[in-house]
Amino acid sequence: MNTLFIEKEIKYTGRELAPHWIYKNFHLQGDSIVAFLGEVEVKLSEMVDIEDVINNEPIYSKRMLNFIIEQFNVPLEQMVYNQRLFISIIKEVLESYNIKTKRKGDDLFYDDRKLSVSIATKSITSCLIHTALNIIKEGAPVKAADLSEMGIADVKEFALKILAKYSDEISSIKSATYKVRGIL
Amino acid sequence: MNTLFIEKEIKYTGRELAPHWIYKNFHLQGDSIVAFLGEVEVKLSEMVDIEDVINNEPIYSKRMLNFIIEQFNVPLEQMVYNQRLFISIIKEVLESYNIKTKRKGDDLFYDDRKLSVSIATKSITSCLIHTALNIIKEGAPVKAADLSEMGIADVKEFALKILAKYSDEISSIKSATYKVRGIL
Amino acid sequence: MNTLFIEKEIKYTGRELAPHWIYKNFHLQGDSIVAFLGEVEVKLSEMVDIEDVINNEPIYSKRMLNFIIEQFNVPLEQMVYNQRLFISIIKEVLESYNIKTKRKGDDLFYDDRKLSVSIATKSITSCLIHTALNIIKEGAPVKAADLSEMGIADVKEFALKILAKYSDEISSIKSATYKVRGIL
Amino acid sequence: MNTLFIEKEIKYTGRELAPHWIYKNFHLQGDSIVAFLGEVEVKLSEMVDIEDVINNEPIYSKRMLNFIIEQFNVPLEQMVYNQRLFISIIKEVLESYNIKTKRKGDDLFYDDRKLSVSIATKSITSCLIHTALNIIKEGAPVKAADLSEMGIADVKEFALKILAKYSDEISSIKSATYKVRGIL
Amino acid sequence: MNTLFIEKEIKYTGRELAPHWIYKNFHLQGDSIVAFLGEVEVKLSEMVDIEDVINNEPIYSKRMLNFIIEQFNVPLEQMVYNQRLFISIIKEVLESYNIKTKRKGDDLFYDDRKLSVSIATKSITSCLIHTALNIIKEGAPVKAADLSEMGIADVKEFALKILAKYSDEISSIKSATYKVRGIL
Amino acid sequence: MNTLFIEKEIKYTGRELAPHWIYKNFHLQGDSIVAFLGEVEVKLSEMVDIEDVINNEPIYSKRMLNFIIEQFNVPLEQMVYNQRLFISIIKEVLESYNIKTKRKGDDLFYDDRKLSVSIATKSITSCLIHTALNIIKEGAPVKAADLSEMGIADVKEFALKILAKYSDEISSIKSATYKVRGIL
Repeated sequence: MNTLFIEKEIKYTGRELAPHWIYKNFHLQGDSIVAFLGEVEVKLSEMVDIEDVINNEPIYSKRMLNFIIEQFNVPLEQMVYNQRLFISIIKEVLESYNIKTKRKGDDLFYDDRKLSVSIATKSITSCLIHTALNIIKEGAPVKAADLSEMGIADVKEFALKILAKYSDEISSIKSATYKVRGIL
Repeated sequence: MNTLFIEKEIKYTGRELAPHWIYKNFHLQGDSIVAFLGEVEVKLSEMVDIEDVINNEPIYSKRMLNFIIEQFNVPLEQMVYNQRLFISIIKEVLESYNIKTKRKGDDLFYDDRKLSVSIATKSITSCLIHTALNIIKEGAPVKAADLSEMGIADVKEFALKILAKYSDEISSIKSATYKVRGIL
Repeated sequence: MNTLFIEKEIKYTGRELAPHWIYKNFHLQGDSIVAFLGEVEVKLSEMVDIEDVINNEPIYSKRMLNFIIEQFNVPLEQMVYNQRLFISIIKEVLESYNIKTKRKGDDLFYDDRKLSVSIATKSITSCLIHTALNIIKEGAPVKAADLSEMGIADVKEFALKILAKYSDEISSIKSATYKVRGIL
Repeated sequence: MNTLFIEKEIKYTGRELAPHWIYKNFHLQGDSIVAFLGEVEVKLSEMVDIEDVINNEPIYSKRMLNFIIEQFNVPLEQMVYNQRLFISIIKEVLESYNIKTKRKGDDLFYDDRKLSVSIATKSITSCLIHTALNIIKEGAPVKAADLSEMGIADVKEFALKILAKYSDEISSIKSATYKVRGIL
Repeated sequence: MNTLFIEKEIKYTGRELAPHWIYKNFHLQGDSIVAFLGEVEVKLSEMVDIEDVINNEPIYSKRMLNFIIEQFNVPLEQMVYNQRLFISIIKEVLESYNIKTKRKGDDLFYDDRKLSVSIATKSITSCLIHTALNIIKEGAPVKAADLSEMGIADVKEFALKILAKYSDEISSIKSATYKVRGIL
Repeated sequence: MNTLFIEKEIKYTGRELAPHWIYKNFHLQGDSIVAFLGEVEVKLSEMVDIEDVINNEPIYSKRMLNFIIEQFNVPLEQMVYNQRLFISIIKEVLESYNIKTKRKGDDLFYDDRKLSVSIATKSITSCLIHTALNIIKEGAPVKAADLSEMGIADVKEFALKILAKYSDEISSIKSATYKVRGIL
């Protein structure tokens, strides 16, 4: 799995959650996870979560730590497992900063306030995840938490830990399928 | 997903990690998770983790909280994602008791001592997971932690929370595949 | 599987055979079957059956009992098995009214006249089936039969029986995969 | 799909429901359906339906028309759809003799008496179905119906019709996956 | 597998690599391979190989022997295996003309000059391959080889051999999955 | 993909074509290909090719270059594509020695005499291939060719080239699935 922290700020609009966006823009081929900082504004027309569209809940946050993951040759259901595990990993990295959060499905909460957004979906040739954590909560449409109030000053360092831990986890999951005998 | 806490103590020997063991013994048909207490002694000849066999590491623990999960129509790789998520869920339930543990792959550690064993594998018709947590650590071959020292007196209540949370998670993952549009 | 008889009449144009059409319009999430009455007019540009497009056979019927089924995480081939079985179920419900029809593939015939249209296809995230039975045959481009001439006055009641029987069948098929041991 | 009516009588004991049994004995390679006549006696130790084992319901019938189907490269769930469709096809062939039966899941009933037994399961490399219809009902452990009382004298001719219809259906299902455009 | 040599010249622009292009234009339903001669000009906007788009390498050749393959119900990864094998088959047919080439992945080289282009991709309902061999190398953007200089005068005969050999190979691969017992 | 040339001679009896044989004996975890030299004697009871069992054709060769490949999480059909490609790769490496052979399915012929044996099959958790080339043809039950008469003195060097080329091919196939856009 390729990992990359993108130094340049990028505004996330939803159109970045597209097959080969990582490959075309950052020339990483194959299973990849990238992180970047930037404003997030996803209009209803760009949203892939139909529940949010039905509920008329577009996404806005002034500044977020964004992750985009693309994995090939996997079914959507497995990618959702992936996404849940990715949220658990973020939670675990926060714990290494002595910050306690709660995971509910694919959401993280801090002090009962929402810290994250996340979605997993499928294209013809791959599955994709977008997950983002508020850095500055102003402007978010729901009662929000953010990384600033938690005292995470070096967001890049924080992101790098998540990238590394996710990449290790995926390798270790592959390994786990290699070492067990089938049972009768 | 069926859930069941089995009141009767059962010694886990490895032979219980078999397709339809839950169905034949407890008449739960289909995707199921059960929990029970009992001694754990898995001899090398019964182990499915070939790495442990190569390293000559049989499993013994005087008393453990055991979980057996069986899910049908899933590939092994997805079941390993499942297993990791299940370990995360146990960790989260421990947090609700204000107990802090660390997850490394499919293992849980408390105070750098190993609390759990876990394996996921495949039969012809299903995938299976066994996960167990020490209740009393005496006799375990490695430096171990256990639920007793953490002050979890009501192990059944603890187990029921895990059963419920896992079952909810699986439903919610299914739902997540139903509500997203595919992308081009 | 969710089931719904939609009271409102809907003209079926082919654009309704779209992923999440049921979810967006009737808020049923996941595997679902809905039934509704209405005129059917599918122009060549909206048809998914390329054979019909090649043969220049658009679909028209003044009033039909329509079914739309959406199922997630299934391959197209399985959805076609599904479709054939669904046609068998309609045939069986007709038998409970003492009406004898013949099934040829995914078509039903009454007195050698065509009673139904049906198609199964695939989107990025799901598979879909549209099946419709003539209620009033006037205007159909081929020698047709309809429910009226068979004496089915209460079309809603008839539809509800089909919805229930299909939903039961799908559950029972799932169960059948849970109770058999693999063979060597 | 290969089809064969085996002239020789064969006692069905359950051990015939094995991968490549058709290939090894009748030299038909690949997806195949065969029919033969004979006594049926499946002891509990040979049964693949664990529900029947739990309920202590071995199978006995003095003389049955047996079908064994083996298909490669299909998941078990699809094979169960297959099985249901196969039962529907038998029912339809019976209708061509003006005999009315009822299908409940994978069972056929005549005059509320059970006519058939059926099971679908999976080996490492294929899926298999056994379906059998009573020819002479004496000795069956449940209230049974048989082909004799229905007046089907030429059981071979009856079997050949079923073999041909099933083989055609499978081809036509394959075709149905080739002619539809995907939808967005 | 259907095979067809199309007598009419067709300019290949990339838009022909579309699901059901073979079916709609030549009425071959299902898994098919067709061959035709014609100019090849694929603009960047029509290319499916994103690597070539990134490298700004559109395709042009004055006259090529083109193959389009469409196969249903296969994953993309298998289609790439397919493609590599198809290139090996072309190489083997060239050997039957006493012409020695080298295969590197999905490319064929003659005298260290590139003879072919090839791509495999996926639609919602099928996988597709386009492979083309230079007949006249003038105008190709890279140092090229062509069939003319190799002395292959009867390109149709050459194409027919490839069509037949590929079709045989696919059948024989299917057979190979039918005749092996699974192992424990 | 792990690659290993095993220095020690091993007699191949068929029992080596087992899941995790490579892992248990040579501690390579995951997708792997190994090569070794040794006598080959596969009795009918150990053969996985049922066709050979039916034809009563056990395998014997005094000394062969053996390859065993194990790959996880792949369907059998893809493994057969793999096998065919592997045979093509052996053929291509022979060409680099200026030796011309003919491939027919999964067999290689030199001067119309059989050089190789090969089989691909499936276990519960993986797929496996055994391919072997005669080094000394004496004792083979059919008209055979061998590497000795072709002048390949350094069989290890020859084997290492094949291991490297196969490993590269598999990586390059993975890559090919990462770089193409899906088509509509």
